[in-house]
Amino acid sequence: MLLLLHKAMIPGLRKASTLRLTSRLCIRACSTDDSFRPQHPSFTFSDDNSASRGWGIMGTLLGLSAVLAYHECRCRAAQESSRIYTREEVSSHRSPKTGIWVTLGHEVFDVTEFVDLHPGGPSKLMLAAGGPLEPFWALYAVHNQPQVREILAQYKIGELNPEDKVSPSLETSDPYASDPPRHPALKVNSQRPFNAEPPPELLTENYITPNPLFFTRNHLPVPNVDRDTYRLHIVGPPGSQSLSLSLDDLYQFPKHEVTVTLQCAGNRRSEMTKVKEVKGLEWKIGAISTARWAGARLCDVLAQAGHRLSKTEAHVCFEGLDSDPTGTAYGASIPLARALDPEAEVLLAYEMNGQPLPRDHGFPVRVVVPGVVGARHVKWLGKVSVEPEESDSHWQRRDYKGFSPSMDWDTVDFDSAPSIQELPIQSAITEPQDGETIQSGEVTVKGYAWSGGGRAVVRVDVSLDGGITWQVAELDKEEQCPRKAWAWRLWQLRAPVPAGQKELNIVCKAVDDSYNVQPDTVAPIWNLRGVLSNAWHRVHVHVTP
Amino acid sequence: MLLLLHKAMIPGLRKASTLRLTSRLCIRACSTDDSFRPQHPSFTFSDDNSASRGWGIMGTLLGLSAVLAYHECRCRAAQESSRIYTREEVSSHRSPKTGIWVTLGHEVFDVTEFVDLHPGGPSKLMLAAGGPLEPFWALYAVHNQPQVREILAQYKIGELNPEDKVSPSLETSDPYASDPPRHPALKVNSQRPFNAEPPPELLTENYITPNPLFFTRNHLPVPNVDRDTYRLHIVGPPGSQSLSLSLDDLYQFPKHEVTVTLQCAGNRRSEMTKVKEVKGLEWKIGAISTARWAGARLCDVLAQAGHRLSKTEAHVCFEGLDSDPTGTAYGASIPLARALDPEAEVLLAYEMNGQPLPRDHGFPVRVVVPGVVGARHVKWLGKVSVEPEESDSHWQRRDYKGFSPSMDWDTVDFDSAPSIQELPIQSAITEPQDGETIQSGEVTVKGYAWSGGGRAVVRVDVSLDGGITWQVAELDKEEQCPRKAWAWRLWQLRAPVPAGQKELNIVCKAVDDSYNVQPDTVAPIWNLRGVLSNAWHRVHVHVTP
Repeated sequence: MLLLLHKAMIPGLRKASTLRLTSRLCIRACSTDDSFRPQHPSFTFSDDNSASRGWGIMGTLLGLSAVLAYHECRCRAAQESSRIYTREEVSSHRSPKTGIWVTLGHEVFDVTEFVDLHPGGPSKLMLAAGGPLEPFWALYAVHNQPQVREILAQYKIGELNPEDKVSPSLETSDPYASDPPRHPALKVNSQRPFNAEPPPELLTENYITPNPLFFTRNHLPVPNVDRDTYRLHIVGPPGSQSLSLSLDDLYQFPKHEVTVTLQCAGNRRSEMTKVKEVKGLEWKIGAISTARWAGARLCDVLAQAGHRLSKTEAHVCFEGLDSDPTGTAYGASIPLARALDPEAEVLLAYEMNGQPLPRDHGFPVRVVVPGVVGARHVKWLGKVSVEPEESDSHWQRRDYKGFSPSMDWDTVDFDSAPSIQELPIQSAITEPQDGETIQSGEVTVKGYAWSGGGRAVVRVDVSLDGGITWQVAELDKEEQCPRKAWAWRLWQLRAPVPAGQKELNIVCKAVDDSYNVQPDTVAPIWNLRGVLSNAWHRVHVHVTP
Repeated sequence: MLLLLHKAMIPGLRKASTLRLTSRLCIRACSTDDSFRPQHPSFTFSDDNSASRGWGIMGTLLGLSAVLAYHECRCRAAQESSRIYTREEVSSHRSPKTGIWVTLGHEVFDVTEFVDLHPGGPSKLMLAAGGPLEPFWALYAVHNQPQVREILAQYKIGELNPEDKVSPSLETSDPYASDPPRHPALKVNSQRPFNAEPPPELLTENYITPNPLFFTRNHLPVPNVDRDTYRLHIVGPPGSQSLSLSLDDLYQFPKHEVTVTLQCAGNRRSEMTKVKEVKGLEWKIGAISTARWAGARLCDVLAQAGHRLSKTEAHVCFEGLDSDPTGTAYGASIPLARALDPEAEVLLAYEMNGQPLPRDHGFPVRVVVPGVVGARHVKWLGKVSVEPEESDSHWQRRDYKGFSPSMDWDTVDFDSAPSIQELPIQSAITEPQDGETIQSGEVTVKGYAWSGGGRAVVRVDVSLDGGITWQVAELDKEEQCPRKAWAWRLWQLRAPVPAGQKELNIVCKAVDDSYNVQPDTVAPIWNLRGVLSNAWHRVHVHVTP
């Protein structure tokens, strides 16, 4: 045990600044999510920073003596692991000063030293300080794994007084218990919250993605909304009344339909992870799908509430009905100018491919913001307001932003980057798949291409030799409105396999009508959140002789 | 005196490559080119390169003996201060080897020794080598002071031949005979038609490019337009009257001002040429400039003529007053939706940086289309009409389009690609320059970044090791309107030169607010017209030990 600790700590202290990140990532590797809740973001970050500094200094100055001191401390904790504590005692340990204790089942843990190593950030773990972990683990099911329990076991200091009631079990308190059933074809990246993508072989089977296969990106449990009592709260301008709209009220606005591709900012994150680990769900190429959406235009609803374009910059803030245990709802915002522009076609959508929205996709109402990153298409929409600043949601301010490859979790300043709105040009190969063996003779390459901001895809180049020579793929014939090319283009290329070739390095890259192109490689666009992964897509296939 | 000379010359020889670069600028100034034919670029380049090598060797080998030689030369020069020189003689003195001469009025100066003492840097003074100082002093008025004249007086070596003061007039049959005089600092890519760019060391000296240094892209001779008889013809919708507007009529519309960066689609073409020959002028990184434009908004003028947004796609076609021998005018078009959108700020501009438009930039009226390729900013504007199709001009239909690297002149189908409108994200390094030798210790890297469509530049990454590691550059503090970031951002990075490094491979890449990035390399975006050259910009520099 001592040796194990030794092994764990020495490199940790040597590379103190990466330790925090990597141990975070170790746990995260089994992860799922990704983003957490927007708890006290300023606290989170100042805490984060001071923690970084602390580790940095420690790493530089302490050396082996610190490791030994740490051992001693850990050993003392281990010796005390048979002590009995009351719930009251536990609950009095909720700060660095008193020590930070938590319980799981009947076991008590002193996680004071672990707080700064917590992959989700110290503030998230602090939510559980002095009490049971179960309600949080239930929400972020990634925790419920042997590796995580092993880490936790190191911090055990004793047991709960048997007379103290054990917290409700994971099963009965499961906030995800009422999540809807899902299609078995979906490739699940995380069960709680549910995040899943269609497999490549189904992804471009249809121009319109069938509802059950549409990629699902949930941040929290799916709320159970009653269509009859549902009300959408539209906050009016200062001094005027707000609107409280039932679903039937919303139907009274002119119904607007538009075909829109949604893409998660984390699509293709798994390719970034290959360069260097990042924080987030391991999306492959399927965090993108296309549907025909129908609903009221946001501009009509905002106008009804009395909102007009302001001379100063303003933002429309959305709040979902999904919320974490503290009651904090998912939130995001878009610029008011986009919201009020009829040509931008922002919807309060209540239909997806002719059906009421499925529960996983925001029943009864979600925002659809054509050309904009998925994170702003707030689901289970509860409230809309117009504010001088962006939404103060964690997901608007502390997530879904792009950074230089040089930024790490110690140096990143989230305020220095704009929140992602329009996405850059993207494309990927859905057929053949990486590692597949194809017949010699002819190969058919298929895929999708899409760009944000209504910019149309004008060309897809495909290479069979890793990017040395290129052929132009054939685009589908779907209609694209100028400046409103909100939906993807599916494409394919049939090409002879060069004789004698034993393998092909197939690459695709797309061009939009502003002639933006995809970057050649992943490393130079790597970023700590693993978003905006749009380098050339590459698949390696074997050719049968 | 010897000591003084020593002091002055040593740094001069240390920085031989700087001198060499600027002397290159001067040599290029005499070269001519033609936009319609591919100009043996390989010849131009080999010439350039051999010059670089020559100067590089000189800087390394000469040492003290050269200083002494120069001293001798200076003494002789002083004795000869009453000598008479022809312009031709003066213009042959534009390098440290021959001596560096300039003129002011009728006086001739040998400023060889002063070059390295020049407060604005040696490279700025070298721009005037072999010619008159007046055009530069006019730009940088700080020079026109008694103290500066006193310093200069010390270097006087004689006077200009009185018969030689006026520059020789051009031949009368020459269609370009009435082209305006140009600033000698411009690097000329073609004399007829005139195409020239500011040198890198002046390009980012100012956020607003001074009019005489603004890059010039003419397709035809500059027309001579009389402001009093000038009429702008605005064709009305079918069945209604057209407008014929004098300049004074145009002044009656509300005056609108906007700062806009213009970039030629061929900017940085010379980098594409290195991959494979293309058709076009050999622009380096200077086919981009920024001005404050003022004029009537196109939407106001179109509205006055009775034009409204149509449900079907339509285009506003522009015709210039410049025409070829067959009478065909330069022409281009933009979508009607952009022309009528007040937020797009399309201007019929009659002022450039507070002055009437210079003749080279479209006097009396040009179109300014913020965020859009230079080719649509039609100069010497004669006619505006609204058509169901794009302009049928050669430059709209058969030029200024992007293609796959696989297309050649035998396979290209110009109808298959959209005409370039908005341009993609772009950036380049203006300091240091390729091949330069820098001091060890610290390096300052400067440059510009810009994106089309009003997309703001949000970050510039700079690498000193060819793109392996990156640092974030500091952007200028110029205001940017959301969605209307029409102007470039200047940026700089000060960074330590890694100890022991003998050379640096400096790279820059920019990111816009749709998180579009520049591609890593040129070859995969190579196209037969050499347009849209926006790969990472790379400069290789040597470091003094």
